[in-house]
Amino acid sequence: MAKQDKSSKFPDNIIATGRNRVTIENVQPAVDGGKYPVKKIEQEWLVAEADVFADGHDMVTAVLMYRKQGEKKCQEVNMQPVGNDRWQAAFQLTGTGTWEYCVRGFIDHPKTWQHDFRKRLAGNDTRELAVQLQIGIQWIAKIAKAYPKTKTEAKKWIDNLSGNKANAHAGSEELEKFLTQYPLGEFETTYEAIIPVIVHRKRAGFSAWYSFFPRSAAPAGKMHGTFKDCEKLLPRISKLGFDVVYIPPIHPIGKAFRKGKNDSLTPKPDEPGSPYAIGSPLGGHKDILPELGTLDDFKKLVKAANKSGMEVAMDFALQCSPDHPYVKEHPQWFNWRPDGTIQYAENPPKKYQDVLPLNFENDDWQNMWLELKSILDHWIQQGVTIFRVDNPHTKSFVFWEWCLAEIHKINPEVIFLSEAFTRPKVMYELAKKGFHQSYTYYTWRNSKQELSQYMNDLLNTEAREFFRPNFWTNTHDINPYILQSGHEPQFLIRYFLAATLSSNYGVFGPVFELMVNAAVPGREEYLDSEKYEVRHWDWEKTNKLTQVIELVNKFRNENEALQFTNNYTACHIDNNQLLAFLKVHNGNRVLCVVNLDAWNKQSGMVNVPLHLLGKQPGDKYVVHDLLTGDKYSWQGEANYVEIDPYRLPFHLFRIEEP
Amino acid sequence: MAKQDKSSKFPDNIIATGRNRVTIENVQPAVDGGKYPVKKIEQEWLVAEADVFADGHDMVTAVLMYRKQGEKKCQEVNMQPVGNDRWQAAFQLTGTGTWEYCVRGFIDHPKTWQHDFRKRLAGNDTRELAVQLQIGIQWIAKIAKAYPKTKTEAKKWIDNLSGNKANAHAGSEELEKFLTQYPLGEFETTYEAIIPVIVHRKRAGFSAWYSFFPRSAAPAGKMHGTFKDCEKLLPRISKLGFDVVYIPPIHPIGKAFRKGKNDSLTPKPDEPGSPYAIGSPLGGHKDILPELGTLDDFKKLVKAANKSGMEVAMDFALQCSPDHPYVKEHPQWFNWRPDGTIQYAENPPKKYQDVLPLNFENDDWQNMWLELKSILDHWIQQGVTIFRVDNPHTKSFVFWEWCLAEIHKINPEVIFLSEAFTRPKVMYELAKKGFHQSYTYYTWRNSKQELSQYMNDLLNTEAREFFRPNFWTNTHDINPYILQSGHEPQFLIRYFLAATLSSNYGVFGPVFELMVNAAVPGREEYLDSEKYEVRHWDWEKTNKLTQVIELVNKFRNENEALQFTNNYTACHIDNNQLLAFLKVHNGNRVLCVVNLDAWNKQSGMVNVPLHLLGKQPGDKYVVHDLLTGDKYSWQGEANYVEIDPYRLPFHLFRIEEP
Repeated sequence: MAKQDKSSKFPDNIIATGRNRVTIENVQPAVDGGKYPVKKIEQEWLVAEADVFADGHDMVTAVLMYRKQGEKKCQEVNMQPVGNDRWQAAFQLTGTGTWEYCVRGFIDHPKTWQHDFRKRLAGNDTRELAVQLQIGIQWIAKIAKAYPKTKTEAKKWIDNLSGNKANAHAGSEELEKFLTQYPLGEFETTYEAIIPVIVHRKRAGFSAWYSFFPRSAAPAGKMHGTFKDCEKLLPRISKLGFDVVYIPPIHPIGKAFRKGKNDSLTPKPDEPGSPYAIGSPLGGHKDILPELGTLDDFKKLVKAANKSGMEVAMDFALQCSPDHPYVKEHPQWFNWRPDGTIQYAENPPKKYQDVLPLNFENDDWQNMWLELKSILDHWIQQGVTIFRVDNPHTKSFVFWEWCLAEIHKINPEVIFLSEAFTRPKVMYELAKKGFHQSYTYYTWRNSKQELSQYMNDLLNTEAREFFRPNFWTNTHDINPYILQSGHEPQFLIRYFLAATLSSNYGVFGPVFELMVNAAVPGREEYLDSEKYEVRHWDWEKTNKLTQVIELVNKFRNENEALQFTNNYTACHIDNNQLLAFLKVHNGNRVLCVVNLDAWNKQSGMVNVPLHLLGKQPGDKYVVHDLLTGDKYSWQGEANYVEIDPYRLPFHLFRIEEP
Repeated sequence: MAKQDKSSKFPDNIIATGRNRVTIENVQPAVDGGKYPVKKIEQEWLVAEADVFADGHDMVTAVLMYRKQGEKKCQEVNMQPVGNDRWQAAFQLTGTGTWEYCVRGFIDHPKTWQHDFRKRLAGNDTRELAVQLQIGIQWIAKIAKAYPKTKTEAKKWIDNLSGNKANAHAGSEELEKFLTQYPLGEFETTYEAIIPVIVHRKRAGFSAWYSFFPRSAAPAGKMHGTFKDCEKLLPRISKLGFDVVYIPPIHPIGKAFRKGKNDSLTPKPDEPGSPYAIGSPLGGHKDILPELGTLDDFKKLVKAANKSGMEVAMDFALQCSPDHPYVKEHPQWFNWRPDGTIQYAENPPKKYQDVLPLNFENDDWQNMWLELKSILDHWIQQGVTIFRVDNPHTKSFVFWEWCLAEIHKINPEVIFLSEAFTRPKVMYELAKKGFHQSYTYYTWRNSKQELSQYMNDLLNTEAREFFRPNFWTNTHDINPYILQSGHEPQFLIRYFLAATLSSNYGVFGPVFELMVNAAVPGREEYLDSEKYEVRHWDWEKTNKLTQVIELVNKFRNENEALQFTNNYTACHIDNNQLLAFLKVHNGNRVLCVVNLDAWNKQSGMVNVPLHLLGKQPGDKYVVHDLLTGDKYSWQGEANYVEIDPYRLPFHLFRIEEP
């Protein structure tokens, strides 16, 4: 739009921007300045902010532009100043896929003129006002030229500013509307980065995972569980309120270096081995362990789960047993040693002889990438919509970035959970590269200080924009020390915290809800782990924990505030054993108070952040414990709570009007 | 270096990076991710940090690369891990100009092999160690191939690893040195941005400014001061210890709309007008007001100042009186109104009729930019090395970015001080665009809370890397309320804080050291301001304040810790009227304790951060008050201070060994 001088006294970049007086900086949210997409859930609003300012005293207009990738035209919304040269605007992400947004800004001369005119009116300098009316008319004429369709309206305003009520017209809100609608926008600045936003379906941000071993799904007496047995468990899992059923690998298991019961190196001939030692002469990652059933059985299981409103999450474990067909077909993908053996997985002195890692630096890496991705394609074709990825942090980041983006292009509904129990920056990097959810350190965060600090690390940093935590009470690899007591209130506490602090959470059952606590002595490993043997469980058993699980899942579904994690606000409470937090969404307000002491009654005054409830200091409100049905009338900020862990170690309060 | 598959199953960017397993992120220091240069002073060290990590458990090597712009080869230094995947290295900026640095990293397979070998030695698995020795030999052979000059040494290591002390050799520190010196560095990752660093001469970061009006330089009785009169003042200013002498504009002053005494619109015929109404038929920005003398007189003044180790800072005020030659020669540079007049500067309802702003959006902007820069070129040719820029925030940012960069290319010694008393982000933007120093809000930060918060804003944010504060007690535009009492201890406090909190500071004299306090009632303006009239001062007078100024400037020069600002550390002290802070540089340690209450004695326990002194809790040390010569023996962290503002409202302690 700028009329540029045709001479070339300056380099092109200066010629192009020499009269652009507006600066735009620090556009948020953004991950690494726009290098990676911000993650959002379908129908969420994105609130964008930017520093927008210019030299001098002229008024600035800032515009937020956004579109779904591939759309030709951007939609636009004017940003509003929120103080200290910061501007804000929001838009709704109405569909899944990749979106992008940017900010532009310009000096708004006509509005500056009107703003100053209003101030001049107070001065009452008739001669000056007369000149200013003429200047106003000049601006309106310029607008009419820039927007031919405004010709008639512009003519009206020019008449108004020439008539005998000219001053009133010049300062009017109607004229302000006209000037806002048709900005001149010369010498406009556009922010240097287009910020990508990836929008996922609801379940990527709100999910309750139940994990179990299909091999243990058979009723007692029968040796090895099958997909058909699994199908029979679905009604119970669904009744408990879970919506994702995660099962460890279902592929043929290698015989070479097979592990026995409790990780033994000398298994008996009939021991089944670890399902993570994938691959045997019967096939690899695209095949099924015959003991579990057929591909059709598996597809039936997936469909049955979907029918109950659940999804099956498959394990994607990129490693091979020495018997895996890849070893013969693609020996170049492995790391061969001078003694003619392949390097097995190890972290000296720990050795995993039944598992061969893939070498992501091998010369045939391109074919390997394509083959690995084809495993996902294969299972997606069979109906799988969620993958739990085993140890993604021991495969290269660039592989995941490419692979997840490729899948997302064709199947944007597919969700990936990263099982990376490792250093924080590595976990974050995997999230940046495309994983939808991630396991976390929650499993080891027990005290109030630990939990508060961890929520702060996750939510009050840029991580909130790309890292979606999934809080697990336990996993088949982790029998946390705090649960090894087998103490019921402790299981209740750890369950409740996972399901309310985080909108995504999971349990490894049935050992969790049956409160199985036997551990390998001194370690966070389950004794007689199903990783190495078939177990049998009483799948019909109910207890206080299963009742609580059922209720909490029900209330998670009924209360939108519990369907997000970033809306967590810590509430001060004067007792180091009590943790309180508030979650608010669309008018739904949930206050959780948890007694972290599983052995003693604790009490304290909880400080409710009234401004988040739209309340004044003296206002009354009702806190309704959804689990017990109890209602309490509260007033103002500080209110008393007392929690007996042997009754229930927490309150799940919905805040209601009196 | 990477052997790439020749087929093209992937786009080029993936082919190029598909096997790069190392991630490099968050390289610091950087301003806006490297868009603007980090500012440093000659001989300073730059400590760079980066997140560097890879998938899996392999060891990573991170290398810091740096060079002065234009040098062909980078220098390199290996970075050291400092925890949580963060790496650090430092290099010294040995000369002024623009430098740049970057970080690269790669998986270090030979070192990983050795690291694991050492762990395996404990395991004592003879067969495994034999294979590992062969793998080590393979790596060494690969190194010999990559670095032909290592052939002999590599041969020695291969023999060692084949001999009977092979295990000891394989784990030896000598081999580690060899592997460190000759890294293989395949599939290397380089950080995406090259970070620029601009290195200025010492005075850009360490300066004491004295400002006065040449028009008032004459001894009493004579009407208008001259450059010759100014020259006579230099010995006194130099004795006080200042090193920059800043004078307001020295150009012909317009007659049109001339302002009289105390900003009057009806001046008497003999009143001199404001020096900021630049330009008259006698000339413009490249000319000199005849009353002050000739160009030769000015050049003599500049030289005389230089001889005394001082520099003259010229005022660069980009605006014109209606009589300025530019108005006739370049009418297109101004903003003409429909009534045939030029828009004067205003911020309704305030009007500055004697000052016409330039229009940075005018169609002839390129010629205007060139002309404006030629003003600076002109005065640099006359020997000027420092400019104080008047209201740079009412000129376009892009103009400054271009102009200061152009000057820096040819005259990297020239320093610019930004007089932008405006919103924080605008002030910061000017610093990013190239200003060496900036006026600050210090002039209005009085209480402990205000001062602490302000130091925090400046130093614990990215601003520390690009915004160099210059703390002014007062200016010819600002007679701060806190000094309007005329109370001597108050002047001492405000002086001392400016000169010790910030390595750059300034005073507007002689009204400051003579403690002139008369103000325009209710405003922070000096009564009978020299902006509008000629004053006469007793330039010989000395008092407690001049004595303190002389001493503090002496100790600033003798104590390197006071020559930097970013080394400020707040010290806790249990009295809200006492401010304490420590500065450390190269073993020089200065502790300042200031009584902010100018009227009452205050006492408290100051907590000295012992770890910054290299002290243990029980250690003894001496605090030596440089101003009074008093020495106190202190021990441990908490020590007692008591300050009587009527004696001296502060301690300037050098910390010495007992």
